[in-house]
Order: sequence, then C-alpha cells, then structure tokens
Amino acid sequence: MYKARNNRIIPKVVIERLPRYYRYFQILEGKVDKISSQKLGEIMGSSASQVRLDLSYFGEFGLQGYGYNVKKLKEELANILDIHKERRFIIAGVGNIGRALTRYDAFEGAGFKLMGLFDIKEELIGQSINNVKIYHVSEMGNFIKENKIDIGIISVPRDAANEVAKTMIKSGIKGILNFAPTELDVPEDFPIENIHIIDKALALSFLIKAKEKTK
Amino acid sequence: MYKARNNRIIPKVVIERLPRYYRYFQILEGKVDKISSQKLGEIMGSSASQVRLDLSYFGEFGLQGYGYNVKKLKEELANILDIHKERRFIIAGVGNIGRALTRYDAFEGAGFKLMGLFDIKEELIGQSINNVKIYHVSEMGNFIKENKIDIGIISVPRDAANEVAKTMIKSGIKGILNFAPTELDVPEDFPIENIHIIDKALALSFLIKAKEKTK
Repeated sequence: MYKARNNRIIPKVVIERLPRYYRYFQILEGKVDKISSQKLGEIMGSSASQVRLDLSYFGEFGLQGYGYNVKKLKEELANILDIHKERRFIIAGVGNIGRALTRYDAFEGAGFKLMGLFDIKEELIGQSINNVKIYHVSEMGNFIKENKIDIGIISVPRDAANEVAKTMIKSGIKGILNFAPTELDVPEDFPIENIHIIDKALALSFLIKAKEKTK
Repeated sequence: MYKARNNRIIPKVVIERLPRYYRYFQILEGKVDKISSQKLGEIMGSSASQVRLDLSYFGEFGLQGYGYNVKKLKEELANILDIHKERRFIIAGVGNIGRALTRYDAFEGAGFKLMGLFDIKEELIGQSINNVKIYHVSEMGNFIKENKIDIGIISVPRDAANEVAKTMIKSGIKGILNFAPTELDVPEDFPIENIHIIDKALALSFLIKAKEKTK
C-alpha cells in the first residue's frame, strides 16, 4: 500500500503514470507556462478528470480556471519521483537484454548508476562492458551489501529468476526490476516492477485481432 | 474499444493480463488438471473474484465448486491470443535495445517471426544480425507492403519515433510495439503497446521511497 500525504492509498496504476507526466512536463517546460487538465488529458490519452484525480494524490497543484503551472509541477514530480537522487543498481544476467541495458544511456540520465554485472558463465567473469565489471553470481550478495545497492535488474532465464531474486532480497536490495518472463515470489509489499516483453507482444496481437474482427 | 463475444467492452488492463494467465497455464499443464479461481488468484497476485471477472469476458470456463480445467482453458487462451498464428514483425532502430530484441529467442517461441531490420546509419545497411538483414529506413514502407508485416517494433531515439510510426502506419502495419521513450501520435484505436523501461525504473524508485517512509 502506498499512501499519499493525506493518507489516501495511491493506486499502483497512478504511480506508474507519474513518470509519463514527468516526461511531458520536461517537454512542455520552456514552451508553455501553464497547461489545463483538459489539454494534459489529451496529451496523456486520458481525460481531464483522470488527470485531476491522478495529480490530486500529491497535493493541490491546479488552480480552477488557470490550469497547472508547468515549471512548478515538473519540479514537484521530480521530487516525488526522486529524480535528482542517485540510485545504485546491478544487473543479474548478461545475456542479450542484460547487455543492452548495460549500454542503455537513459538510466544514467534519470539518476540510475550501474555498479556491477553478474552471471554464471565462467568465460564472462572478470570481463567488463562499458567499464562495468562482470562478477560471478555467487559474489552478488556481498556486493549488494558492500556497495549499498538499491535496485536489482533481473535478466536471467526464467528458471533462475526466483533464486536470484531471493539472494538479492536477502542481501538487502530495496527493489527489483524484473525482465525474466515469470512472476517472482517476493514478500508482500516488496517494491517490484515487471517488464514482460512477450506479454506485451501477445497483448498487441490480441488488440490487432480484435480490431480486425470489428471491420 | 475491444469487445467480448457478449458485446461487453474488455478493459485494456484485462487484455494485458491474458498473456500472464497463458504463461501460468503453460506451467500448470501436465502438473494439475484443474485449478480454483482462489488458487489462480494467489498465483497471479490478485483475488479469486478478479480472476473470475477477467476470464468471464471470454466465455464460461469455470464450473462452480470444480474450478478451471487447465488444459481446456490453456487452449482457449492460446486461441484468444492467436498463439499458433505466425505474426511477422520488423524492428526499426538497430541500437542496443534493437539488437537485443533481434537476438531475443522468446519471440520465435511465441509465434513472432522477425523479417527485417531498419536503421539510418549507412555503415549498418546491408549487414545482417542472426541472418536478418539491415535495410535503410527509406525502404521500410515498401518492405512492409511487400512482406505483409503485421507488427513494427520501434527502438529508435525519441525524436525519430513519430516519423517512423507514421511511415509504418501509412504502409499498412497492423500494430506497433514501442520502446522509444515517448507517447506516439497514432490514430484512435490503433493497436499499440508501449515498453517504457525508464518509466518502470522511476515507478520502482517511487515504490521504494514510499516504503521507506512508512518504516
């Protein structure tokens, strides 16, 4: 359960929309001073009332008949999302996805700092990608503790994912971003986000099929 | 709007959960014959009533006091998701993420066939990754038409994403899976799914921060 200042419970879908609001305000800043909930809804692909409801969890940002102050709300969203705080992360699983994430610049731009890579393939251990060293997964627990790692990215094969998650959590990691195509068995309320690429592709297939049927 | 057989509108969140149900039934098949909505809810991290509601859009699968027939429901989900149908896709943007997706075996396992890669970097054109050729993005429109491409994956930089989407849609692509960190300007009801990695990482940061506060 995630609670707002006024003790209302913030639905997870609202939390997941916050970074999108932030992205828009980044683009809008310098171009416009204020924006209406109507207009913001159009950009976000939702309604004015949805926008007002989403943002109401975090304070009173809008003024009736005036709209939202872009600069102020952007700063507030940056605070809410802790954009300016460094968060240290590691990646377990140096396969195709893990490698791509290692080289994904956008993490650094958003305040995430990659501290180490982990795998079980002996031939990879000791190598570096983009100056980040690959360690054996057996060293992961100590590494997390010693380097105060906040976030663990899991990009190992499905069958290994739960074991890796268990080690991460036991070693004090604060949250997991999971790319393995499985639901991880984590304690209730443990911070976790899943990126299931194939699920998204299959949902897309369904949308395509549903649209063809209505023709 | 996506409508079920009984003309009820299926919420997009339900559609996005279907592949997860399918994944579970794949694992369950051969292990158990039937499963209760209660148990299925536990596995999915939701409630029995949510499970019953989700599946009710697609027919009458469960029997009161008996539960769901695993084999039958798995097959029905495979039909709903068109798992056994080949869907042809291309990838625009052969950067880190694009390259990783090219080598991502899970696509083929789920019926997706990669037909071509597109980029603007002259030094890449004509090369192949995993036997899939890289073409110049100016050839994409014709390629989509000639090869009857169903799905376009967009993994180009943010500023180029809308232009690529426009070309894809104009050339008859049926759906887009977008990895570029922006909302694409597509016609209403055009099938699209977004994978915004940084948004997920930022939402995770928020969950971590919210949990620390409650301590």
